[in-house]
Parts: sequence; C-alpha cells; structure tokens
Amino acid sequence: MISKDSHTQHISQQFNAELEEVRSHLLAMGGLVEKQVNDAVTALIDADSGLAQQVRDVDDQINHMERDIDEECIRILARRQPAASDLRLIISISKSVIDLERIGDEATKIARRAIELCEDGESPRGYVEVRHIGDQVRRMVQESLDAFARFDAELALSVAQYDKTVDREYKTALRELVTYMMEDPRSISRVLSVIWVLRSLERIGDHARNIAEMVIYLVRGTDVRHLGLTRMAEEVANKRS
Amino acid sequence: MISKDSHTQHISQQFNAELEEVRSHLLAMGGLVEKQVNDAVTALIDADSGLAQQVRDVDDQINHMERDIDEECIRILARRQPAASDLRLIISISKSVIDLERIGDEATKIARRAIELCEDGESPRGYVEVRHIGDQVRRMVQESLDAFARFDAELALSVAQYDKTVDREYKTALRELVTYMMEDPRSISRVLSVIWVLRSLERIGDHARNIAEMVIYLVRGTDVRHLGLTRMAEEVANKRS
Repeated sequence: MISKDSHTQHISQQFNAELEEVRSHLLAMGGLVEKQVNDAVTALIDADSGLAQQVRDVDDQINHMERDIDEECIRILARRQPAASDLRLIISISKSVIDLERIGDEATKIARRAIELCEDGESPRGYVEVRHIGDQVRRMVQESLDAFARFDAELALSVAQYDKTVDREYKTALRELVTYMMEDPRSISRVLSVIWVLRSLERIGDHARNIAEMVIYLVRGTDVRHLGLTRMAEEVANKRS
Repeated sequence: MISKDSHTQHISQQFNAELEEVRSHLLAMGGLVEKQVNDAVTALIDADSGLAQQVRDVDDQINHMERDIDEECIRILARRQPAASDLRLIISISKSVIDLERIGDEATKIARRAIELCEDGESPRGYVEVRHIGDQVRRMVQESLDAFARFDAELALSVAQYDKTVDREYKTALRELVTYMMEDPRSISRVLSVIWVLRSLERIGDHARNIAEMVIYLVRGTDVRHLGLTRMAEEVANKRS
C-alpha cells in the first residue's frame, strides 16, 4: 500500500508540475505580447521604423508559443484526463492563448501602420489618443495576466469593467478624427492609418477582457461571457468565500 | 464477460452519440451564423433597417449556442476522457465555436452600420464591393462548415487559400474608397461606414480560414496554423490516404 500511495503521490506531483509549467508558459507568452503592444505604440509615436520592424519579427515567436502551449494542453488532456479545477485551468489556458495570439496580431498591424506613417509622413492628429488608449489597453493586458497568475477574480472583473471606458474613449477619438478629415481631406490617408491603430487598440482591450472572463471562469467556475457587467459582478461577489 | 462487453459497447455507443450531437450543434450554429452574414449584407444593400434589427436580435441566440456547445465539450472532456481523434474532434469544435461566435459579432456590427446608413442616407460608393466580398466570405463560411461536416481536408484547404483573394480584393476596394473620400469630403462619414463593413467582411474571411485550419487539424492531425499556404497544402497532400 505504501508503495502504491507513494506512486500515486509521485504521479500527482508530476501532474501538478505539468500544470504549473503550462501556466507559466502562458504567462511568459503574455509578458512578451504585452511588450509587443508597448513597442508597437512607441514605434508609432516615435516614428521608429526599426522598432516597428522588430515587433513584426517577434510575431513569429508568439505564433510558435501558441502552438507549443496548445500542444502541452492537448497532451495533458490526453494523458492526465484532468477533472474539476484542473480541467478548468487547461480550458482557460487554451482559450486565453488564442486571445494572446490575436493581441500579438493587432500589435503587428500597429507596427505595419507605424512603418507606413514613417514613409508617408506623420498624421496631423491622433497621437495623443493613441498614447492614451495604448496605455489603457496595455494595462488591461497586464492586469488580466496578473489576475491569471494570482487566480484573482476581482482584478479580472475590474479589467472587464474597464473595457467600457476604453470603448467610450475610442468612439470619442474616432469622431474627432473623422471631423478633422473633413476639414483637411489631404490628410485622409494618414489619419485613416491612425484610425486603424485605434481600432487595433480597441480590439486588444476586447481580447484582454476575454482573458479576464476566462480567469473568472477558472476561479469561480461560472462562464460569465455575454452575461453583462452587472451579472458578472454578482457572480464574482456571490461566490466570494 | 459477455455482459461486460455489452456494457462497454453500450458506453461507447452513447459516447459516439454525444460526439455526433455536439458536432451537429456546431453545424447548426454555423448555419445560423452564415444566415446572419447573409442577412446583414442584404440589410445594408437594401437599406432594410427591420432586417438589420433582426440580425442584432438573433445575436443573443448565437451567444447562447456558444455557451451550450462549450458546456457540452467540457462535459465530454470530464466524463469521457476522449483520446486521439475523439479528442481532436472536441478540440476543433471548442476552437471553431469561438470563430463562429466572432463571425456572428461581425455580422451584428454590419447590421449596426446598416441602421446608421438608413438614418444618415446611403453611401455614394462601396455597395458593389460589399455585395461581392460579402458573397465571397459567406461562401467561405459555408464551405468551412461543409468541410467540417464531411471531414474534408481538401475543401478546407481551398477555403484557406481563398482567403488570400478576399484580402486582395478588400485592399483594392479600400484604396478606391479612400480616393473617393478625398474627392468628396462630405461623404467621409458614410463612406467610412462602408469601410467598416468591408473590414468586418474581411475579418469574417479570416475566421472562416481559422475554422478550415481546424478541419485540417481534425482530419490530418497536424496543426497547420501559421504554416503558410504552401506548407499547408503539402500537409494536406502528404497524408492523403
């Protein structure tokens, strides 16, 4: 019996180590993706086409990380047959990795626009908004990952709530830029580049929100997608232990 | 032994029935999403705000379908501990359902623009392109689902390949619309609405491509994401039996 127990314990330690490893890989990918967002925005604002090119080069590494993490998840599902909270962890990781990869894609799109603007000349407007909304969504990405690292449903909720603020500021910025284009039609093409960047940033906020929702699912066991912020807050509060 | 065999057989029949059921739910959701894309484009072109509102109302149903299918997948993972091709089926379904939900989101965004354009007056340009690219991506969605239904990796490959054509036509349409805005700045706001619609359609093409890649993974067992079309075609061809 002792030998069997120790065998079981050994298996279970190995299993925990595997779960911990795939989670740390997700967080490492998240750190890199967050840096990509930051670098892409900086490249745009500083008109630094070298940095923009670097962002584009790193994207491939992020795609590889997605594949590797996915493979780890599938291997764990096949060999370990996880249940309950272990299964929820694997599911949250395999969904969050998709959002991280797409955040990486949006950062690459921003980098591409930065290169365009280096070539075509700066847009006369929109940089203040890019910096501001860029900071907001970068922080959303960071906090959604912190929430994942610390199994913190309250922090995740605050990320999801913050997405509303970003959406509102994005819409305001958009309206102002459209008005500007009407006043100065020669700037249309360059201002439009900035509009695409803002759109990418807004999408990054959506993806960070998705990750935050996965953290709530992981910690609380409830799928809060599409529930609306009020019900989401109730779910987070209700199950507070 | 006979009793045990028959018990095992019974379990395995039940399991197959569950797999078949979740797959049929995915295809039903896909059928509805495809209709949403079609209706949204029609609402825009016919300036039919009633139809656009209907698209927005149906979105909630699609969100529910996503949740239900996800729950089915998790239940199967927890209870049946699928392996090999059964596991691949569950993973492809749980990834594809995300893309279907996002196609639904894009259809809703198109419907919202259709309502805006009903209120602000038609855009002077862009409807031909919306109809054309709309038809293309609706067909991509349909064929990616057909490929899923028939486990047809070749058809899935052709969907992924077609995405290039859509991207090219989207870029051409965009350039023309930007030129038009410069010539007639008063139209900027309405033309921009059409540009957002084209962007949504292009995203729908990307999501259909993602589903097609999942079909190739399901049928061939290889993760072909980010591989590029040439290697993807080789993977599909190599393993042809």
